[in-house]
Amino acid sequence: MKQLIKNVHILTMDSDWIEYKDGYLLIEENRISQMGEMSDSLPSADKIIDGKQGILLPGMINTHTHTGMIPFRSLGDDVPDRLRRFLFPLEQVMTPELVRASAEYAMAEMLLSGVTAFCDMYYFEDEVAQAAEAMKVRALLGETIIDMATCDAENAAEALAYCESFIQKWQNHEMITPVIAPHAPNTNDQKTLEAIVALSRKYDAPITMHVSEMTYEMEEFAEQYNQTPVAFLEELGYFDQEFIMAHCIFMTEEDMQLTQKYRDNVRIAHCIGANTKSAKGVAPVRGMLEHQLTVGLGTDGPSSGNTLDLFTQMRMFANFHKTHLADRGAFPAREIVRLATVGGAKTLGLFDQVGSLEIGKKADIIIVETNSANMFPIFDPYSALVYSANASNISDVWVNGQQLVKEKQLVQADVQQIRETLYQQMDRFVVEAKRRAAEI
Amino acid sequence: MKQLIKNVHILTMDSDWIEYKDGYLLIEENRISQMGEMSDSLPSADKIIDGKQGILLPGMINTHTHTGMIPFRSLGDDVPDRLRRFLFPLEQVMTPELVRASAEYAMAEMLLSGVTAFCDMYYFEDEVAQAAEAMKVRALLGETIIDMATCDAENAAEALAYCESFIQKWQNHEMITPVIAPHAPNTNDQKTLEAIVALSRKYDAPITMHVSEMTYEMEEFAEQYNQTPVAFLEELGYFDQEFIMAHCIFMTEEDMQLTQKYRDNVRIAHCIGANTKSAKGVAPVRGMLEHQLTVGLGTDGPSSGNTLDLFTQMRMFANFHKTHLADRGAFPAREIVRLATVGGAKTLGLFDQVGSLEIGKKADIIIVETNSANMFPIFDPYSALVYSANASNISDVWVNGQQLVKEKQLVQADVQQIRETLYQQMDRFVVEAKRRAAEI
Ligand SMILES: [Zn+2]
Ligand SMILES: [Zn+2]
Repeated sequence: MKQLIKNVHILTMDSDWIEYKDGYLLIEENRISQMGEMSDSLPSADKIIDGKQGILLPGMINTHTHTGMIPFRSLGDDVPDRLRRFLFPLEQVMTPELVRASAEYAMAEMLLSGVTAFCDMYYFEDEVAQAAEAMKVRALLGETIIDMATCDAENAAEALAYCESFIQKWQNHEMITPVIAPHAPNTNDQKTLEAIVALSRKYDAPITMHVSEMTYEMEEFAEQYNQTPVAFLEELGYFDQEFIMAHCIFMTEEDMQLTQKYRDNVRIAHCIGANTKSAKGVAPVRGMLEHQLTVGLGTDGPSSGNTLDLFTQMRMFANFHKTHLADRGAFPAREIVRLATVGGAKTLGLFDQVGSLEIGKKADIIIVETNSANMFPIFDPYSALVYSANASNISDVWVNGQQLVKEKQLVQADVQQIRETLYQQMDRFVVEAKRRAAEI
Repeated sequence: MKQLIKNVHILTMDSDWIEYKDGYLLIEENRISQMGEMSDSLPSADKIIDGKQGILLPGMINTHTHTGMIPFRSLGDDVPDRLRRFLFPLEQVMTPELVRASAEYAMAEMLLSGVTAFCDMYYFEDEVAQAAEAMKVRALLGETIIDMATCDAENAAEALAYCESFIQKWQNHEMITPVIAPHAPNTNDQKTLEAIVALSRKYDAPITMHVSEMTYEMEEFAEQYNQTPVAFLEELGYFDQEFIMAHCIFMTEEDMQLTQKYRDNVRIAHCIGANTKSAKGVAPVRGMLEHQLTVGLGTDGPSSGNTLDLFTQMRMFANFHKTHLADRGAFPAREIVRLATVGGAKTLGLFDQVGSLEIGKKADIIIVETNSANMFPIFDPYSALVYSANASNISDVWVNGQQLVKEKQLVQADVQQIRETLYQQMDRFVVEAKRRAAEI
């Protein structure tokens, strides 16, 4: 099928920053087959979509989240050591049905906000994969491995076993890439961390992990190994694998130099909103980029970052990094849009397929409408995306050539129905959550 | 007329943090006359509005903006010394018609995002006042005084004269308070600054001014007077007047101690989004509050802050101040909602009328719908407002008892028509703007 999208300002996000200011784009089956200006002669198509002068760009890519955690949103924000007081205990009552419902909800929310691909880390990840398949999104999905009893494994060994069968089941899926997700370097013992590298080698499966996120993580590694977590992981062989490190707030200059040697494999999921909401700090992204490292943006889970859209992250990114560097010219808007698209795709190893609009690439495409009050005037579309737009400005979304959002509504699913299903699964969680909240 | 709003989670924002979790609110004429739980017996009404489980709270108050500057949005963001390279030169081509159209647009945008009152500073302020009257919003409006030729005055003396007749014209308006708006302490000479205080005394008119915003402003005052701008203004008598200082990024401990003595008169409009986008820094708000100063939130103009809603500011406030203080528990969400409502009303001297929901107060009220994907679940409504919501979640808005936004649409005006009018007025501005942008 041929779909022609017309009357759009196209930001291709390709390496030449090519734009079609009054443009059209043709999707053939699941790929981009043609782009140009409306003044050209337009190709024929089976379906024509009027983009109404919206901004068309590659789908945004959320490089780090936890789609199973929608039930935690707005619970215990602003509470010190929330991880140990709310998150770990409440995760004990998670069920496969609840994770599935939460994941579908999170994917619906991401689609409605212009996110077309993401990297996830959670429990019952097979449920998340089924949700992703149902919602038709593109995803890297990782079963969490952690050195404690969780809702789906008695111990890390069981989690590893889950991981292996999860990889076997999903490894040849068109849209889903199974990954291995050790929780953090300090929440797994060395033996487990080594087994994870071995598993990654065996299946050529990427790894994703929270790294250099916590001050106590840094202190533990300094005391125990006289090393940073980054140096420790490199020694264990992680950097020879495709490896997505989330956060890296406390990455040092030496860490960056070390990582640079492995920059084809090792990438960073930068979660500025979650990192600063929890007062942890601002990761050294300029330094990372100066060391030629690949960086994408991530929201972290709905409990940490609350929203799953990248508009929030782009705006936060601009303000935090400019202020951090005391330079209002640092990271101009288009560089930030690049991180949310190209950077995300490279971080997840998907850039040969998506992340920029180029002939032959898969059609993961979004339109940001410019009709709402906040979207006028537009002298610079990148500025409008970073500084003016919000998640609700997304009007249309295609993933793999298929239109999944049309005029701000899901095409193939009903978000109210998904919410109802999720709400029904939350009974026990809510009781337990309110009990814990009352204890604060 | 009696309007009954039912099925809402009411956050009164009163001093006891009273909430009605499944509540109703009755508006009689322009005032709040009753509130309670839906389980009570409901009062009769001429009109019943179903709040559909939305969050109902006082209208948000934008304590510092420039409504005439919509044409500048997305122009030259990320450019160093934008003020002198873009803003001052382009302001030369502003016309009364363009300011009027821009102001109506900005007010429409603010209403749609839940802002019911604001403090403005610009040129042709009489046009802004006419726009405010047409749009039925509550506002403090200040004609800018600056020591240079502007679009509406050859020099500061002419601007002062404009100011005086503007005050005379609008001083007894129910919804509009005329104020005097010297641009900054370093962009007016001392004689003008003294004349402004005299004018303020003569008419009992408040003053608003950018203060301690620029590093060069601080340096100039240190060199010229061996003083901070705050100490300088106090000596000139500004602190005896009702005085709203915007920004105060570089306020010192001594400044805060000095200001504390005048805390009934002197308040601060904190613009975290604009201050950090321009890499200026994070104002010491915790210190201000410890010195019992009144602080409200502001967006600054659409050229500096880009959006005019306070959701963006609340989210930025949380992340920046928590990170700045290295304390994730600092400024819990409800304290931030308090700044956006109560704090704003106190900053603008409107708290006897609006800013909290109390029987007898004017009905400036907003409903945030909880139906959108980003608004579920809600364990804590303040958290949801600060960390999850965006401007597009505003569904209904009342100002002075009159419903101005209904189901996300303006009731008495058409935003597309307002945009069309604005666009028609922008011809010359656009030509000049593009010429300057091309020079970068
Ligand atoms: Zn995470
Ligand atoms: Zn300003």
